[in-house]
Amino acid sequence: MRPLTLDSLNPAVAKVEYAVRGELAIKAEAHREKLKEGNHGLPFDKVISSNIGNPQQKGLDQQPITFTRQVAALMEWPALAELAPNAFPKDVIARAKELSDEIGSVGAYSHSQGVPFIRKSVAKFIEDRDGYPSNPNHIFLTGGASTGVSLLISMLITPPNSGILIPIPQYPLYTATLAQHNGTALPYHLDESSGWSTSVESIEAAIEKATREGIVSKALVIINPGNPTGALLDEATQVKLLELCEKHSLVLLADEVYQANLHQPTAYPFTSFKKLVAQTQSPVPLVSFHSISKGVSGECGRRGGYFECTNFPEEIIAQIYKMVSVGLCPPVSGQIGVDSMVRPPKPGDESYALWKKETDSIHAALAERTGTMSKRLNALPGVSCVDSPGALYLYPQIRLSEKAQEAARGAGKEPDAFYALALLDKTGICVVPGSGFGQKEGEWHYRLTCLCPGVEEYVGKLETFHKEFVAQYGV
Amino acid sequence: MRPLTLDSLNPAVAKVEYAVRGELAIKAEAHREKLKEGNHGLPFDKVISSNIGNPQQKGLDQQPITFTRQVAALMEWPALAELAPNAFPKDVIARAKELSDEIGSVGAYSHSQGVPFIRKSVAKFIEDRDGYPSNPNHIFLTGGASTGVSLLISMLITPPNSGILIPIPQYPLYTATLAQHNGTALPYHLDESSGWSTSVESIEAAIEKATREGIVSKALVIINPGNPTGALLDEATQVKLLELCEKHSLVLLADEVYQANLHQPTAYPFTSFKKLVAQTQSPVPLVSFHSISKGVSGECGRRGGYFECTNFPEEIIAQIYKMVSVGLCPPVSGQIGVDSMVRPPKPGDESYALWKKETDSIHAALAERTGTMSKRLNALPGVSCVDSPGALYLYPQIRLSEKAQEAARGAGKEPDAFYALALLDKTGICVVPGSGFGQKEGEWHYRLTCLCPGVEEYVGKLETFHKEFVAQYGV
Repeated sequence: MRPLTLDSLNPAVAKVEYAVRGELAIKAEAHREKLKEGNHGLPFDKVISSNIGNPQQKGLDQQPITFTRQVAALMEWPALAELAPNAFPKDVIARAKELSDEIGSVGAYSHSQGVPFIRKSVAKFIEDRDGYPSNPNHIFLTGGASTGVSLLISMLITPPNSGILIPIPQYPLYTATLAQHNGTALPYHLDESSGWSTSVESIEAAIEKATREGIVSKALVIINPGNPTGALLDEATQVKLLELCEKHSLVLLADEVYQANLHQPTAYPFTSFKKLVAQTQSPVPLVSFHSISKGVSGECGRRGGYFECTNFPEEIIAQIYKMVSVGLCPPVSGQIGVDSMVRPPKPGDESYALWKKETDSIHAALAERTGTMSKRLNALPGVSCVDSPGALYLYPQIRLSEKAQEAARGAGKEPDAFYALALLDKTGICVVPGSGFGQKEGEWHYRLTCLCPGVEEYVGKLETFHKEFVAQYGV
Repeated sequence: MRPLTLDSLNPAVAKVEYAVRGELAIKAEAHREKLKEGNHGLPFDKVISSNIGNPQQKGLDQQPITFTRQVAALMEWPALAELAPNAFPKDVIARAKELSDEIGSVGAYSHSQGVPFIRKSVAKFIEDRDGYPSNPNHIFLTGGASTGVSLLISMLITPPNSGILIPIPQYPLYTATLAQHNGTALPYHLDESSGWSTSVESIEAAIEKATREGIVSKALVIINPGNPTGALLDEATQVKLLELCEKHSLVLLADEVYQANLHQPTAYPFTSFKKLVAQTQSPVPLVSFHSISKGVSGECGRRGGYFECTNFPEEIIAQIYKMVSVGLCPPVSGQIGVDSMVRPPKPGDESYALWKKETDSIHAALAERTGTMSKRLNALPGVSCVDSPGALYLYPQIRLSEKAQEAARGAGKEPDAFYALALLDKTGICVVPGSGFGQKEGEWHYRLTCLCPGVEEYVGKLETFHKEFVAQYGV
C-alpha cells in the first residue's frame, strides 16, 4: 500500500501553527522528564511553564476557588450531602441541589447549547454587568472559549477568498483556526508606543489591502483585555470600532475572556462590547466570548465557557445550534464551572467570606506581580515592557544585537526563538517568542505569564539570564 | 450594513445534517417544556428520549458507577479525604491520591494529548484486551469519540475530490463531519437480511464507483459493534477488511465505542481491529476510537474517550499533536473518567463487590430489554427487527402503506419521519427516522435505544401506537 505521509494529508494541516504549545513547550516537557532522573545535568531544578495562562498548574499553585470545587464534588457524588453534611457549607449544598434538580446527572448529555438553566444564569450575569437585556437562547455554553472561536470562524469563512481581521500581536488560536479552515488572516497592527492601543485607521488600511487582493473581510477580531498585550480599550475607541464594523458589514468577534483580570480597574476599566452595542443601538452582529479558564476562576482543565450572539438572526442561531449538536454537548463539569463563575456566593451566604478572601488575594497577587515584573524588565538593557493593566501576561520587547541575530541564523532559528530557547536551557523558564504572536519586521518580543509565585526568584532568573546574554552578544 | 444571512455563511454549513438532534429532538424538547405547564393537553405525561444513547438522562435513570464518581468527587475537592474519610472506600482514596500526584489540579490544562499517566493506563488496558503491545505516545485522549473522529476526518480529507467510505446505515456524525470539511461520503450498504453484515464486495463496489467519479477513497469507516445496527463483525470478515484497506491504501477508522456492550458475548464476541492488525502484521494505518459515554460507564456528560493510532508514522503523530494542541487539552474530568473505565476495581479491592454488582446489572438489563423489545417489535404487522447482539439500539424496518406515504407527502415529510413524528405526538417517545442514518430507496426504519426502564410500559406504548397507525393507514 501507499504509505501514509504528510503529503497525503489535508494541505490545510501543514499551514496550522500554534506556538503556545510549539517547539519551546515540547522542549520544556522534555526537560521536565529529564529532571525526574537523578543525574540530569541541567542547570536548574524545575521547569516554569510561563508559556501558557494555566494558573492552577503544578509549581504555580494558584488554588482553586473552594466554593466552585465543593459544588463540583457534590454534583459528582450527590450522596456526599448526606454522608458528610458537615463538610459542606449550607449554600453549597443548596446550590448543588438546585443544579441537580435542573441537570440531573453530570454523566448525561445536556442540551447541545448548554443546560437552559445555566444559560439563564449567564444571561442574568450579563444583564447585571451591562444594564441591558440578554437572551439565554442566544447564549451557547462551550468547552472553553477556543471551541467557540473555532466554530464561529469555521462558519464565517467562505473559501477561497475571505478573511478575518486579527490584531498583531494576537493569540495564535486565530491564525491557527483560519489556516485550518482555508481563511486568510488579515493582520492589523496594535501600537506599542501608546500602550498597545487599537486604531481604526490601521484596521481600515488592512481592509483596503485585503480588498485590493480580492479578499472579502468577513469579521473583526478584538481581544479586550489584550492577549498578549494586556491592553484595555476605552469606550470611545470601542464605539468607533462598532461604526467601522457597521460600515464594512463585519461581524465583531470580541474575545473578552480576561474581562475579570484588571490590575488598575480605576484607570483602565473594562466595558463589554455588548453594552455599547445596546447603548448605541448598533446593528453590528457581535459574538462575545468568555471562559472559566481565566479571571480568578482559573479552571482551565474543566473546559468551560460561553459565547453570546447579539444582532444575530434566528436562522443563523439555528445553524449554530445544528453545528454544536454534532458535538453533542459541552462538558457538563465545565458548564457547572460557568454557573459558579456567574453566580458566586453573595454577602450573607455562608461561603461568601472565604470566596471574597480567595478572589481578593488572587487579584492582588496578579496586580502586584505584573507591576513588579514590568518595572524590573524595563530596567534591563535593551528591554522595554508595557505595564499591562489587564490579562495575565507581559509582552516585553527585546533588542537583539547583530551578533545575536547571526548566532540565531547559524542555529536556524528566529532571533526571538533563539533567545527564548537559551532562556529555557539556562533557567528552566519557558516563554513564547513574539514570532508566535506576530510583531513588526525587525522587532522581537516574548510573552510570559505573570502567574509565578516567588516573583523575586523568578524575575531574578530572568535578569541574570538577560545580563549574561547581553554580555555574550552585546545589545 | 449588509445583513448577516444564511448565504453569507460558509456553504459547507448548509450541507451538515445531524438527525439524532434534529427536528424530532427539537420537538421533543418543546413537548417537555409544555408538560411543565398545568393544562398542557398532550396525550402523555412524559417525554422519553429514545433518540440518543444517553444512559444517565432523566427518566432513564441508569445510575453512574459509584467508584467512578467517588474518585471524581475526591479529585474535585481533595480535602474531602480528610474531612470525610469514612465516606470513601480505601481504594478510592488511594486512586485519587495517585491521580492527584500525577495530574495536580483538575483545574489545570493537561498535556494536549492527555495526561501521560492515564495514556499509560489506556495502553495497559489495550495490551490486556488484545495480548499485543500498545504505545502510550500513539494514544490521544479526547473529549468523547466524536471529537477524535471529527479531527481525523478533517486531517485526512483533501478537498475537493476525496472521500471516506461509510456504512449505510451509519451514525450521522460521519456524514456531518464530511460535509463540514468538504469531503465526500462514499456509502456502502450493510446487508439487513444477514443481520446487518458487512461485505467486502459492497465496499469494493463503492470504491469503484468513487474512482469512476474522480473521487479518491482515503479511509474506511467501520462501526463495530454497529450503530444503529448493533451487529458484530466476525474475525474472518475483519481480516478481509484489513486486506481490502491494504489493497486500496485506505486508513481504517474503527469506531469501537460499543465494545463493552455485548448482549450475547459467546455467540457474538468482540475482537478489536488492533489485535488483528498485530496478529496478521498488517501495515494498514488504523485508528481505533473508544469512549466513556457508552459501555457500562455511560458518562456522556463528562466528554471523555481516546483514540489509538497504529502503523502511523511519527511525523503524522506530530501533526495530530499540533492540531489537538490548538484546542489546549481534553476535559480533565473526562480523562479521569477514562482512567476509571480502563482501571476498574479488581477482586480484593474494597470497591470491587459494588462495582461488580453495578456493572453486571447494567449488562443484564440491557441484554434483557433488547431481546424483549426486538421480539415484540417483530410481532407487529409490517415490522421486522434484527435482534441486535451489541450496542444500545434496535433499528426496526417498518413497512409503510401507499396511503401513509401519501399522507407524509401531504405533510412535506419523509414517510419514516412522518411515522416518527406521529409516534412522538401520540406517546412522547422520541426516536430517529432511518433517513437520518441512511437506508435503501423505498425502505423505512427508525432507531430507538434500549435504555428505557419499565420495558412493559415502553413497548406497550410503541405497540398501541403502531396498531393505531396501521388501523388508520393500512400496512
